[in-house]
Amino acid sequence: MTRQAKLVVLGAGTAGLTALSEAWRYTDDVLLINAGPYGTTCARVGCMPSKALLEVAHAYGRRDWLAESGIAGTQALEADLAAVMVHVRKLRDRFVAGPIDTAESLGERNIHGQPRFLDPTTLEVNGERIQAEKVIIATGTRPNLPEAWRALGDRVVTSDGVFELKAPGKRLGVVGLGPIGVELGQAFAQLGCEVHGFTRGSSVAGLSDPDVNASLIEVLERQMTVITDADVTLDQGDTGVVMQGGGREVEVDWVLASLGRRPNIEGLGLENLDVELDERGVPVFDASTLRIADLPIYITGDVSGLRPLMHEAADEGRIAAYHALHPDAECLRRRTPQAIVFTEPGAGHAGLTGAKLPQSGVVTGSADFSRQGRALMAGRNAGRLQLYADERDGRLLGAELVAPDAEHLLHLLAWSIQQEMTVDQILQMPFYHPTVEEGLRSALQAVRRELGQRRTQPDLPLCHEPAAWALG
Amino acid sequence: MTRQAKLVVLGAGTAGLTALSEAWRYTDDVLLINAGPYGTTCARVGCMPSKALLEVAHAYGRRDWLAESGIAGTQALEADLAAVMVHVRKLRDRFVAGPIDTAESLGERNIHGQPRFLDPTTLEVNGERIQAEKVIIATGTRPNLPEAWRALGDRVVTSDGVFELKAPGKRLGVVGLGPIGVELGQAFAQLGCEVHGFTRGSSVAGLSDPDVNASLIEVLERQMTVITDADVTLDQGDTGVVMQGGGREVEVDWVLASLGRRPNIEGLGLENLDVELDERGVPVFDASTLRIADLPIYITGDVSGLRPLMHEAADEGRIAAYHALHPDAECLRRRTPQAIVFTEPGAGHAGLTGAKLPQSGVVTGSADFSRQGRALMAGRNAGRLQLYADERDGRLLGAELVAPDAEHLLHLLAWSIQQEMTVDQILQMPFYHPTVEEGLRSALQAVRRELGQRRTQPDLPLCHEPAAWALG
Repeated sequence: MTRQAKLVVLGAGTAGLTALSEAWRYTDDVLLINAGPYGTTCARVGCMPSKALLEVAHAYGRRDWLAESGIAGTQALEADLAAVMVHVRKLRDRFVAGPIDTAESLGERNIHGQPRFLDPTTLEVNGERIQAEKVIIATGTRPNLPEAWRALGDRVVTSDGVFELKAPGKRLGVVGLGPIGVELGQAFAQLGCEVHGFTRGSSVAGLSDPDVNASLIEVLERQMTVITDADVTLDQGDTGVVMQGGGREVEVDWVLASLGRRPNIEGLGLENLDVELDERGVPVFDASTLRIADLPIYITGDVSGLRPLMHEAADEGRIAAYHALHPDAECLRRRTPQAIVFTEPGAGHAGLTGAKLPQSGVVTGSADFSRQGRALMAGRNAGRLQLYADERDGRLLGAELVAPDAEHLLHLLAWSIQQEMTVDQILQMPFYHPTVEEGLRSALQAVRRELGQRRTQPDLPLCHEPAAWALG
Repeated sequence: MTRQAKLVVLGAGTAGLTALSEAWRYTDDVLLINAGPYGTTCARVGCMPSKALLEVAHAYGRRDWLAESGIAGTQALEADLAAVMVHVRKLRDRFVAGPIDTAESLGERNIHGQPRFLDPTTLEVNGERIQAEKVIIATGTRPNLPEAWRALGDRVVTSDGVFELKAPGKRLGVVGLGPIGVELGQAFAQLGCEVHGFTRGSSVAGLSDPDVNASLIEVLERQMTVITDADVTLDQGDTGVVMQGGGREVEVDWVLASLGRRPNIEGLGLENLDVELDERGVPVFDASTLRIADLPIYITGDVSGLRPLMHEAADEGRIAAYHALHPDAECLRRRTPQAIVFTEPGAGHAGLTGAKLPQSGVVTGSADFSRQGRALMAGRNAGRLQLYADERDGRLLGAELVAPDAEHLLHLLAWSIQQEMTVDQILQMPFYHPTVEEGLRSALQAVRRELGQRRTQPDLPLCHEPAAWALG
């Protein structure tokens, strides 16, 4: 017997579940097939447990500042790592429950098993054949781990395993200082671990601006060692793992390997689709519709490799289902790219940065958060903000930063960039006092100086267009 | 001898100094006359020292959550109030130095003394006469204090005195729960004081939405008593001050009177201007140009009573100087109104709220921060956000909220309102995961449900207008 379905979604993660949710607006005739664990990558092993850990680490990390500010007894504070990990798992489990419930609510329409394409509209799972009008591939990714390191057993973990640690050892090595590596490395350092971070290139946390990158490294080095441009080897040592790289050698209790992620495509039978594959083995697809060639198959979420972030995976799930099922689908744009790294101070970027910026015609302006008023008040004065604007019209193109409350500044920046606001227009918005948003204003004013503009009136909107909130 | 000046600025606070700064773009022929202390209200006795205190209080206030999260030893923590106050004054002095330097940099053009109008273009100060082409009044305000309470001496302080306290007593009464009252009341409560707050009306922190107001009161009551609709009397007690009001009687060591502020106009000789005065004794002026009648005199900053907030005072200083000195002054609008109360969680509003909202044609949507994901992760899950939108076109009109990181959400909201964005347009902006901005998204989605709209595609911009950051 062959089951039929208008839409089959492969994968019960963020992209798959939002694809289902979008699909339900058009049809109930959907099937979900999931090979891996239920619960999303974000909730199980990603953004949620990491944030639970980071919140504790950052708050505990304020104890020296509290002591300087008049709070007695801080020397008695101690992080009970085992208890912190219990706290993290407890919160995590709460957030994993939601997506599991959603999948289970499908009843027989939720199939647990490894799906395999026999041809573009026929899948096989658990020995059953399924005839699908449309298929959405949302199988996600898993952490990279060099084969040789598996011999070191439990002493080498990825983000899949780190939140399961019962009592993490106090000596920690981190290999790979992308967003996950710096977040978790700093967190364990703040919680009292001796942390040694190694990374291949010169950049950390996905930053590309040299000054901003240097600012984050300086902050991290207050709590952990940061060794850039290092190829790392791991070997069994007397009491742990010996890490060698960048001219350093250090023995640690355990190693967090944060070396990026690879697509979950094995066993899917992609070879039966007769389509071009990219260097990762993923079918080539249209970046706008997420459709693979002229097949009735779409690819979404982390496995697509486009924008491996939770809110982008959710968008891709919706985009794929919309294009797969909507008879008059319109062309949809993506939101302004935004990346947030939840260190303290935070880091990230919005809009165009690094190699994506035009080679010429870009002016910059920066702000130094080591002297910013509100940041000083909070003892969180560190970081640097760099803005990029179009030389011709002053339009904000992108931003990269290390700053207290970076996640909020990045929302303001991404929203302004998406609306194609000019530096002058942004300077007409309210900046309350005292807030870190005033640091953003300093950087905007620096851009304007670079643009060589001299304003002819105060930074306030003209009256031409009356608004409800205007005076009078 | 009579001194001449193109512009005379009365008052060396935020409004006066920004007026000077704007004036310098047109002329150096300015005089500053200041009767009170140098340094701005904000830096001396307002936003800056209060933020220094609040930052310590909020961080110390996290100790119970830290204990639940795996940090041992929190029971040893104790706020050394005297040391905290030293810390606050140290930071404050750093920020007061700037405006004092600016005034001193004027040399002989900075006159310390009480100015008095003899006629609209003639002032007298320290026995000297000054002929002014234009005058800007920026004399600020001072805290209200009922005459009868002065008999209680040091036991009753206003914001002018609170940051000078060497070792504040542990039993504190607060009369008046506007922004200053709730900020300082909560801060001292978090720092271990027994705090009793009384206020006349039913609203606290300047909130007008009943649900949002109730949310803040609920949060405050975890740390202090809040007695609304209470007229308070103060009397000398055996060991302190006896407060009576709202059916309660309590004895405290000291009382913070936060009962609003009154304009500094005494001695200015306003009676010699022959203009209409409002009920506060302040000359009636044009709210757009800040000009008093057809005189060459402008009134700016807190004394104007328009928007007694630091960033608004700065704007008013610039507006007044621009209109006073610019030959072709254009009509300028104000920024979207915004009020931020720096409690934990924070509170405030943006755009139109309360009585300023239209009587009909407004739809609302709310979000509950007690269950918001990121807020839960941080143990900061409390609060409520209420949005107001125009029923006809979905344009966001205003917002009022209690929420973690309220100050940042309020910037996003105020900027969106100032740009006259609709709820649909805002929902096309990026909302990163997991952030409190997702709570804002929930409220926007609630508004849309109320609007009865059914979207026809995912919440993403259409491709019609290509942008630099779009795909492809």
